[in-house]
Amino acid sequence: MQPIGHVRSPYSDTKAIPKGLGAKHDAEGVLEIRAEYEPGLKDIEGFSHLFVIWAFHRAEGCDLLASPPSDNQPHGVFATRSPRRPNPIGLTVVELLSREGPLLRVRGIDMLEGTPILDIKPYLSNVPQEQLRRGWLADAESRTRQKT
Amino acid sequence: MQPIGHVRSPYSDTKAIPKGLGAKHDAEGVLEIRAEYEPGLKDIEGFSHLFVIWAFHRAEGCDLLASPPSDNQPHGVFATRSPRRPNPIGLTVVELLSREGPLLRVRGIDMLEGTPILDIKPYLSNVPQEQLRRGWLADAESRTRQKT
Repeated sequence: MQPIGHVRSPYSDTKAIPKGLGAKHDAEGVLEIRAEYEPGLKDIEGFSHLFVIWAFHRAEGCDLLASPPSDNQPHGVFATRSPRRPNPIGLTVVELLSREGPLLRVRGIDMLEGTPILDIKPYLSNVPQEQLRRGWLADAESRTRQKT
Repeated sequence: MQPIGHVRSPYSDTKAIPKGLGAKHDAEGVLEIRAEYEPGLKDIEGFSHLFVIWAFHRAEGCDLLASPPSDNQPHGVFATRSPRRPNPIGLTVVELLSREGPLLRVRGIDMLEGTPILDIKPYLSNVPQEQLRRGWLADAESRTRQKT
């Protein structure tokens, strides 16, 4: 796997990235695609949202049980977005704001500055809202609401 | 990158996988996770839908312009789901039907039998429907509707 480009992000430290319940990811940044791959971006402007598949380049090691900041108990790593995964792959949905050649300006950045981008795909469809269940995260949110 | 498991799919030939406009992905299959990673699945049953990140293990080479079966003109590979990508990574949203130990029975399989699974993540949220634009795909669908 070779990066197709890198993320230009306002975050240079993981601590600065909003995490936990109610965290909002509305930071803007740029997906800087390598010049040789620019032809691969043809017609991407037509999509409002993109999947970005990227590498947790600073994560080291792997824990099969993860303790996310949004809950007080551990969950299986595949039921979380923890960076310490068997394969350190990240996935983020971003909103595409504009394109200038190989530069995609996007909203919704939750990656660090310099994060290697592995792939970009169009976001095509939603899961019907009434069919979506959000497991431990919904439980944690509900507990938080009861407290406040 | 090492597979965390493999897909048990009804499809052994890419030709059998529904493609193009209106293709429905409701095939059932199993995500067979390697026994050593089973602890990483704790609490995954609470989620109705999962992201599966996988490898196009039979794809060879890469075309920066792709001609998807749903349209009569080429688009940049990053604006399509073509398997011939710089990094041969696939992404599928599946519905989790049940879990038996390291076996996840799912609906929405569009991978081949034996596809290596790289990662699984919970599907957490939708893009608001009114904000979603689907580019050339929406155009192609609209042209098809006009013809019929």
